Amino acid sequence: MSVKIKDIAQKLNISVGTVSKGLNGASDISYELTQTILDTAIEMGYKPKKMLNEENKKLCIFITNMDYKSKNDFGYDIVLGFKKHAIRDNWKVYIEEVSHSFQKQNNYDKYMLYKGYRGAFFVGFALDDFWLQNLSKTSTPTVLLDNYVSKNFNVSYVGTDNFEAFDILIDYLVSLGHTKIGFFSAYLDSMVASERYEAFLKAMKNNNLEVDESIISFGYYGIDSAKYHIPKIVKNKPTAILCGSDSMAYGAIKVCQEMGINVPEDISILGFDDIDICKKSNPTITTIRQNRLEIGKCAYISLEGIMRNVCINKTTLRPKLMKRKSVKNLN
Amino acid sequence: MSVKIKDIAQKLNISVGTVSKGLNGASDISYELTQTILDTAIEMGYKPKKMLNEENKKLCIFITNMDYKSKNDFGYDIVLGFKKHAIRDNWKVYIEEVSHSFQKQNNYDKYMLYKGYRGAFFVGFALDDFWLQNLSKTSTPTVLLDNYVSKNFNVSYVGTDNFEAFDILIDYLVSLGHTKIGFFSAYLDSMVASERYEAFLKAMKNNNLEVDESIISFGYYGIDSAKYHIPKIVKNKPTAILCGSDSMAYGAIKVCQEMGINVPEDISILGFDDIDICKKSNPTITTIRQNRLEIGKCAYISLEGIMRNVCINKTTLRPKLMKRKSVKNLN
Repeated sequence: MSVKIKDIAQKLNISVGTVSKGLNGASDISYELTQTILDTAIEMGYKPKKMLNEENKKLCIFITNMDYKSKNDFGYDIVLGFKKHAIRDNWKVYIEEVSHSFQKQNNYDKYMLYKGYRGAFFVGFALDDFWLQNLSKTSTPTVLLDNYVSKNFNVSYVGTDNFEAFDILIDYLVSLGHTKIGFFSAYLDSMVASERYEAFLKAMKNNNLEVDESIISFGYYGIDSAKYHIPKIVKNKPTAILCGSDSMAYGAIKVCQEMGINVPEDISILGFDDIDICKKSNPTITTIRQNRLEIGKCAYISLEGIMRNVCINKTTLRPKLMKRKSVKNLN
Repeated sequence: MSVKIKDIAQKLNISVGTVSKGLNGASDISYELTQTILDTAIEMGYKPKKMLNEENKKLCIFITNMDYKSKNDFGYDIVLGFKKHAIRDNWKVYIEEVSHSFQKQNNYDKYMLYKGYRGAFFVGFALDDFWLQNLSKTSTPTVLLDNYVSKNFNVSYVGTDNFEAFDILIDYLVSLGHTKIGFFSAYLDSMVASERYEAFLKAMKNNNLEVDESIISFGYYGIDSAKYHIPKIVKNKPTAILCGSDSMAYGAIKVCQEMGINVPEDISILGFDDIDICKKSNPTITTIRQNRLEIGKCAYISLEGIMRNVCINKTTLRPKLMKRKSVKNLN
């Protein structure tokens, strides 16, 4: 039996009209009372009529820390893939950019209830984003790109399989005669960076290669980061450096060239993601392709699964090696 | 441009009629020629007209080593979940039991082509099944329950998240004061057994618990296996034993009782899967629920994904702890 406004009114011992005002965000009742009404509504599992109405099928993509508006932006195809699939099933898809302060001010479940969104896809969130904390107990169907929330049936993860990706990268380098392989990783403050680092270690071990800490360094995702890390890595003479992203690889190539080290003649550099920059770089960058259109589609498939009570917790996609010019065959 | 019968004929330098006979399994051409024609057809990406016809939407569930026909069988809900979802999208779903010798005699891709199946779901396969070897290069969309094939975009894995399951089990036991935890695992000759063992080790480590090899033993999935392993494990006094399946837990309880050891008063025993036996056992068995209906649904969702070129490689479902009477609170 579905929870009605009068049930909430009864529980809080206030009038139906007041509950109604609270749920609709009327300005003539106090902020505290509105919050209490929303809290109680969520706790009791109340779904407003507008959400049960078939005509009101609304999903939202929440984006933070990621560009998505122009065709070359990392998020563009992710958003497009999700929308294309959702729209076929008659969903309206909204996009909202949410800052740290916005997340701090608004409880996630309350915001979803208030806006009448039935589910959401989170793109670009890092471990320190407030809404990720809200998700361990959320009752709203939610899919996260590259972030994992354990033990909540309403939340699902989608991403490229980092373990298979590093298997492919290391296998490829080994096949070309590389054994002294360095890693210019991103700081381990996101799930994706940590997993890629773990995947690097595992793939090295699977190939009986020694992990040499003098050729591993942790920076940030931007192009500029390379200048603080690459000189230190190359000093210890790896034959190849894997990078945590294409931007980092692009930066690494620039820094090497400034130091008079030729890529790939003197050192091989590999990226991750396959963004536009790989083809513009000189040499072009060998990288792992994340199929972003498919990530978006897949996020919608998972979200639809959760909404139909199929509690998928993780969906991973196949990575694909894009061979270009930044790697040398040592054989 | 789609490959036609005449293209195959041209490549093999034989007549269109002979190719046609080969594709249709006519008995008046040799076995070897039929195989050559089928090999060439697969290599060239030929799809028979009957497969392109919208009316001929056929999928197959291949089952081995698993009962599924009566409601209490492990496979029953898995098959049901898959069928329910596939049928909504107008697929015809066939079920075939495939023995070792059948797999050895028939190449998987050829068999799929011959039968006009557009995709398949594999249930109950172990690492030594021949068709698993065929899958590393298959061009047929295929979803596997509890088995993983790397680096092939046409194959996808579905299963319950074993790592989250063992996190939940160990967290639960720790919350009840257990620290000396044994494991009666299945032999590590299947992907699922290996992964559960790895998950056990990881969850123990996450809780800073010592892994004691004297209370770990490897048996087979049947009830009988317990008598060869449980006496040895209980001699070294664990307070709780995790088991690789419910049947193993059921057997373990029986063996303990025969030895005059009471469950859960003297020792706690936990299962995995949540099959019917858990409720019939005395005491009833605390276990991890694999939602088999959802596994089936999810397998269909993944298969549909691959058929639409969304190359999902893994989908995992949330495990759920089912608290019953076989565990004692030591606090």
